[in-house]
Amino acid sequence: MITHPAFSPEPWDIRERGLDLSVLAQSESVFALSNGNIGLRGNLDEGEPHGLPGTYLNSVFEFRPLPYAEAGYGFPESGQSVIDVTNGKLIRLLVEDEPFDVRYGELGAHERVLSLRDGVLRRTADWVSPSGHCMQISSARLVSFTQRATAAIAYEVRPVDAPLHIVLQSELVANEQLPATSADPRAAAALESPLQPEQHIAHDARARLVHCTRASGRRIGAAMDHTVHCPANVRTEIECSPDTARFTLTTRLARGESLRVVKFLAYGWSSMRSIPAISAQVEAALTLARESGWEGLLAEQRQYLDDYWARADVDLDGDPEVQQAVRFALFQVLQASARAERRPIPAKGLTGPGYDGHVFWDTESFVLPTLTYTTPHAAADALRWRHLTLPAARQRARQLTLDGATFAWRTINGEESSGYWPAGTAALHINADVADAVIRLVQATGDEAFERTAALPLLVETARLWASQGFHHVDGSFRIDGVTGPDEYSALANNNVYTNMMAQRNLRGAAEAAERHPDEAAGLGVTGDEIAAWARAADAMFVPYDDKLGVHPQAEQFTDLAVWDFAQTRPDQYPLMLHFPYLQLYRKQVVKQADLVMALFKRGDAFTADEKARDFAYYEPLTVRDSSLSACIQAVLAAEVGHLDLAYDYLGEAARMDLDDLEHNTRDGLHIASLAGAWLTLVAGFGGMRDSGGSLTFAPRLPAPLTRLTFSVLWHGQRLCVNINKTNATYSLEGDASVELAHHGRTFQLTAGEPVTNPIPPAAPGPRPSQPPGREPVRHRPGRA
Amino acid sequence: MITHPAFSPEPWDIRERGLDLSVLAQSESVFALSNGNIGLRGNLDEGEPHGLPGTYLNSVFEFRPLPYAEAGYGFPESGQSVIDVTNGKLIRLLVEDEPFDVRYGELGAHERVLSLRDGVLRRTADWVSPSGHCMQISSARLVSFTQRATAAIAYEVRPVDAPLHIVLQSELVANEQLPATSADPRAAAALESPLQPEQHIAHDARARLVHCTRASGRRIGAAMDHTVHCPANVRTEIECSPDTARFTLTTRLARGESLRVVKFLAYGWSSMRSIPAISAQVEAALTLARESGWEGLLAEQRQYLDDYWARADVDLDGDPEVQQAVRFALFQVLQASARAERRPIPAKGLTGPGYDGHVFWDTESFVLPTLTYTTPHAAADALRWRHLTLPAARQRARQLTLDGATFAWRTINGEESSGYWPAGTAALHINADVADAVIRLVQATGDEAFERTAALPLLVETARLWASQGFHHVDGSFRIDGVTGPDEYSALANNNVYTNMMAQRNLRGAAEAAERHPDEAAGLGVTGDEIAAWARAADAMFVPYDDKLGVHPQAEQFTDLAVWDFAQTRPDQYPLMLHFPYLQLYRKQVVKQADLVMALFKRGDAFTADEKARDFAYYEPLTVRDSSLSACIQAVLAAEVGHLDLAYDYLGEAARMDLDDLEHNTRDGLHIASLAGAWLTLVAGFGGMRDSGGSLTFAPRLPAPLTRLTFSVLWHGQRLCVNINKTNATYSLEGDASVELAHHGRTFQLTAGEPVTNPIPPAAPGPRPSQPPGREPVRHRPGRA
Repeated sequence: MITHPAFSPEPWDIRERGLDLSVLAQSESVFALSNGNIGLRGNLDEGEPHGLPGTYLNSVFEFRPLPYAEAGYGFPESGQSVIDVTNGKLIRLLVEDEPFDVRYGELGAHERVLSLRDGVLRRTADWVSPSGHCMQISSARLVSFTQRATAAIAYEVRPVDAPLHIVLQSELVANEQLPATSADPRAAAALESPLQPEQHIAHDARARLVHCTRASGRRIGAAMDHTVHCPANVRTEIECSPDTARFTLTTRLARGESLRVVKFLAYGWSSMRSIPAISAQVEAALTLARESGWEGLLAEQRQYLDDYWARADVDLDGDPEVQQAVRFALFQVLQASARAERRPIPAKGLTGPGYDGHVFWDTESFVLPTLTYTTPHAAADALRWRHLTLPAARQRARQLTLDGATFAWRTINGEESSGYWPAGTAALHINADVADAVIRLVQATGDEAFERTAALPLLVETARLWASQGFHHVDGSFRIDGVTGPDEYSALANNNVYTNMMAQRNLRGAAEAAERHPDEAAGLGVTGDEIAAWARAADAMFVPYDDKLGVHPQAEQFTDLAVWDFAQTRPDQYPLMLHFPYLQLYRKQVVKQADLVMALFKRGDAFTADEKARDFAYYEPLTVRDSSLSACIQAVLAAEVGHLDLAYDYLGEAARMDLDDLEHNTRDGLHIASLAGAWLTLVAGFGGMRDSGGSLTFAPRLPAPLTRLTFSVLWHGQRLCVNINKTNATYSLEGDASVELAHHGRTFQLTAGEPVTNPIPPAAPGPRPSQPPGREPVRHRPGRA
Repeated sequence: MITHPAFSPEPWDIRERGLDLSVLAQSESVFALSNGNIGLRGNLDEGEPHGLPGTYLNSVFEFRPLPYAEAGYGFPESGQSVIDVTNGKLIRLLVEDEPFDVRYGELGAHERVLSLRDGVLRRTADWVSPSGHCMQISSARLVSFTQRATAAIAYEVRPVDAPLHIVLQSELVANEQLPATSADPRAAAALESPLQPEQHIAHDARARLVHCTRASGRRIGAAMDHTVHCPANVRTEIECSPDTARFTLTTRLARGESLRVVKFLAYGWSSMRSIPAISAQVEAALTLARESGWEGLLAEQRQYLDDYWARADVDLDGDPEVQQAVRFALFQVLQASARAERRPIPAKGLTGPGYDGHVFWDTESFVLPTLTYTTPHAAADALRWRHLTLPAARQRARQLTLDGATFAWRTINGEESSGYWPAGTAALHINADVADAVIRLVQATGDEAFERTAALPLLVETARLWASQGFHHVDGSFRIDGVTGPDEYSALANNNVYTNMMAQRNLRGAAEAAERHPDEAAGLGVTGDEIAAWARAADAMFVPYDDKLGVHPQAEQFTDLAVWDFAQTRPDQYPLMLHFPYLQLYRKQVVKQADLVMALFKRGDAFTADEKARDFAYYEPLTVRDSSLSACIQAVLAAEVGHLDLAYDYLGEAARMDLDDLEHNTRDGLHIASLAGAWLTLVAGFGGMRDSGGSLTFAPRLPAPLTRLTFSVLWHGQRLCVNINKTNATYSLEGDASVELAHHGRTFQLTAGEPVTNPIPPAAPGPRPSQPPGREPVRHRPGRA
């Protein structure tokens, strides 16, 4: 399954030696740089060859038609797709009369290194041109965390053995040609050349292109400026046309002399501001960047990341690959969110066009738990984005004849963009997932302003949704029928345990928040009767249980269904959804991704240890992990019920999903949720951290290969550090307060500056559960190639 | 709801007085002529104004892409749509220099009469041209039942008060312009200019156009010839171009003189035959028609219909509207099927483009029960068409990873054309419906050749489907999960009672047929073990029952769902599917069309009288009848449980669906299944005829307004006549055999020539069940306007 063997396991770097063009697209995702506002895929400076060129701005999308062979009421007719905006990464090189292209001539040493400490992608190449000229080329690229609108590239070229004529072309290119993506001609047409030129200006070393999208009306400014360092004489030229700006440098370098160019890039966009306003915005960013200079940007970047690692790093002994993977994961989670600032965190971040650039429940269920404890302001921003989409969610609820708000299953601008409703709109659990993230953030930060202005409306409107989607049966129970849980190999089931339990948490959270903030609640029209109704529904929430088997069915009747015939399923028939119709998948016991097991994690407070062990053992042999969202959750539960070796195997899968391209689709972008899941696996899995009971509890226990695990979480602004070894765990707190924690079920008080060490009891797991044949996680052993 | 008040209730005619252009499209469907091979909508001779021009040939369709916003494995990518072929109905008239167009000048008396005895549509019009010329125009049109490829029109024009120049243009027009279709997903998708010209030839009074469809490769020949009768001198001219042929007559008629033209039309098509072969085929048909002449065709038509009415007529006293409606229904069922001959019977027959010209389960479940007892050869032909599509059905089953065969939910050529799988492919019951029709036909005709060659393969392959879709639960029961029953306001439910019971019948029918024909069964690979497995599955078939409520849930858990909030549903929100999302419909107790009640009818042998009464009473308040397939079945069950007045109200709705345009979509074509349902309502409802136990049983009982009901059914080729009045029923048999029947539960032997009269016991119904507010059937009273 490992298609990119080239990343060596170093603690702080992702290093690629050599250049394998067959995995170029994958490496472009792995080497993508982003600050949550701008995203640049790791395309080669010279543009070609490429797997998939990509430059993205958060929330810059185009509408496209959603066609239906047979339409139905409420099916969304228009969807959104992220678009590739003006490419500013391009620096082309001409040596004598030959363009630098790794496919021609001879490529000697080639290395790309993503530094997780610096936030810089560096590249060096030794190249002999077809006519025998020997060159050294190096570049460094960053997307600034501190200057949100800015990226920069330092590019250097040096002839090795003879004087040479050099031409360098630094470009902005809009509407660049992309490989065909959609099979639907109408969708493809909507996304072809999506940028309409509005302005192009160039002078000195500076140029600017302004474009606007056709239907979505996003006005985009892209600008570049350059500084040049060269001992030789350099002639420069700048030119531009509606879709291209080009800064050209010509020089003749003596042997060993080098030409160094720093390219500053600035991007801005708005759906409201005028051409002059957008122009001024990007010019200001460019001026600031140029003033900072390359070294200044580099220093700011390092400082920003030093702060990040100081609070967020996970440090461990025993497995260099996992060490690398978890830092890569944390870095990518930061890249996806750091400066998104009330814009969404898409499933792929800004690393590729996968899933059309949409945000899903991934954000709240996987990414935000990580951000909440490592970068809470980014978690708050993501939820404030949800809050901004409340009008669309209310309107969607009205269309679905529901009360409150229904968040889109997949979207960029807040409007439903899901074209298959049984696995889209029907997955109403996303609303409880949003509420869960809101409750977690408030709990972890104590941020009252956030609670009043964003959390409360989100909780109230989602609680209203559940009150109207569910109903009290004549037996008194509150039932939620006809919805789809996390497992997409089931649909439209009654009383999905995960959904019902998360809705219960949502209803209770809304009631509590409304009682804490009665004035604001009254402003939202909340009455005492409504709060009482939420509490009644939550208390009466129906949770099905199979008495005969002694397990929870994923949804009512699930355990009565036929079990999928795993023995007759060939390895090449996974993922099942590409080889079997829903007609077969839905009616059988086969689980795409953790669903009931997800409930065991997210609502761990509602299950006994015994129930968790039995349920986990029941669902393991049914779960095929055809989703990247599954391994990490299975790892967490495996660790909880004592199967540390199994958890460790799942950790390997979750952590190296993208570095090893385990799902063969890293080319379309990174799996940000799975990356966040790597952190969850270590912190919630082997650290045993839980928060669903209202406070932080831990039940740490290390798998055999790990000898130490150290991580930190932020709790009400204070850094809580947990240091685990084979025999005990030491808790320490920075700051000036104290906090009540629990360790393996025993509560204790932790005071700042007074570390507490607790012994770790041995695990007593039952027999290791089996997985569907051929779907066992790869046995993960440190040092495996 | 009645939008076409102009059809007066006459026993053998559908008469329209005056011409209301606002209901023109509806009248074109009502006045459509067809023999099951050719279909001509009732468009005015002069072509315009029109509601929807239409000329159809059975199985002449074009492929069209089925797009999906989010595709899934096994979603069909190509569908089929019936196309409007070369229009040969056109006869345009020019009076002096003004075209005859009812929208100009002054239309005096205008009458159209469809004679159900003659099978002829007659029209008379008095028209004063804008410049004051007074004309009488009359025409008669037939599509021949005896000459399958032939239609003919007799057209006559007469100046009333002054000599006039007359120009008559008789045309063939291909690719005629069609009005844009509605946004209603039920209406057909129009296909623009689907015919590619291949040949056009004209000489004398004769012309021929040959076209071919682009993707489906249907070669179509259309030809016309004319005879002219006129006392005055007539100049004629013929011309043609790729898409138009025109025969022009010019004359000057004295006052009272008339010009009479008979136009003969012939159509032929093939997906295999060459241009010369198709040409020869239509020329031969044309020659034969011209030899027969108008009078000859008329006489043959009358003879054919005399035979039909002699065996099929339903005659009653007490309600002239119902009398008319049931004859209209029988006539349309005949028109849809008479000469289809191993081609499908579409839901709209050949009367309009509704549902894209597709055939559904309607055919086997509603139309074939009627045809089986009135025109069994047409029922056999329709099932032989299913048999011809077995290769496509087997292939579809393989794609769905099922055994045996899966018939398309909607199709023309046998391939699945359903674009929303939860209410299409998942409605696997269609396979049991085919089997049910097969079993019924064999039972009613004793046709062994049919059983061996068509029935057995159909039963075997559908039984294999059920054996693979269902499974034996650990409790031993055989369960069929994740399918959709007849009610399209539910989907993907477990153990739908209708589906399970029909599958049971299918499995048993296959086992019995295979045992009767062991050699042929062996040829299909059937083993003793397989037969035993079918029997075991049938015996163990799970039928859910709600002990608390004492009723059968439509499917498992149905009676646990919330009941639809009928009180809050406004009248303008019906049909619900156009105003509410499936998300809401599926999760509630609300029934679009008889589902469990359909099981009470089709598998009446499996329920006690008490169960039927309780189940019927439970489902009545939940059933909104948003489908035209519901009223007739509810009528039959209402009659069975003794609610004769309610049955009578439903009869009114079922019988006059199209004459009164109750669903506002008669413009797209007639509801052939509902028309067949009118016959079912009388014969199975008030006649109480059942056949699901293996023999014919009756339980006749008339509603108050009806004083007599007489109908006949064919049983093994013999005509069995049932004559019912208020107090008793008289059974008589023609032929030379005898048959065992039952009357209200008491069996008796009926011998040919020896009528038996049995008394009718009084009904003892409970209280009349209620319907959802506003969805009660209109109280039907004889003589209502």
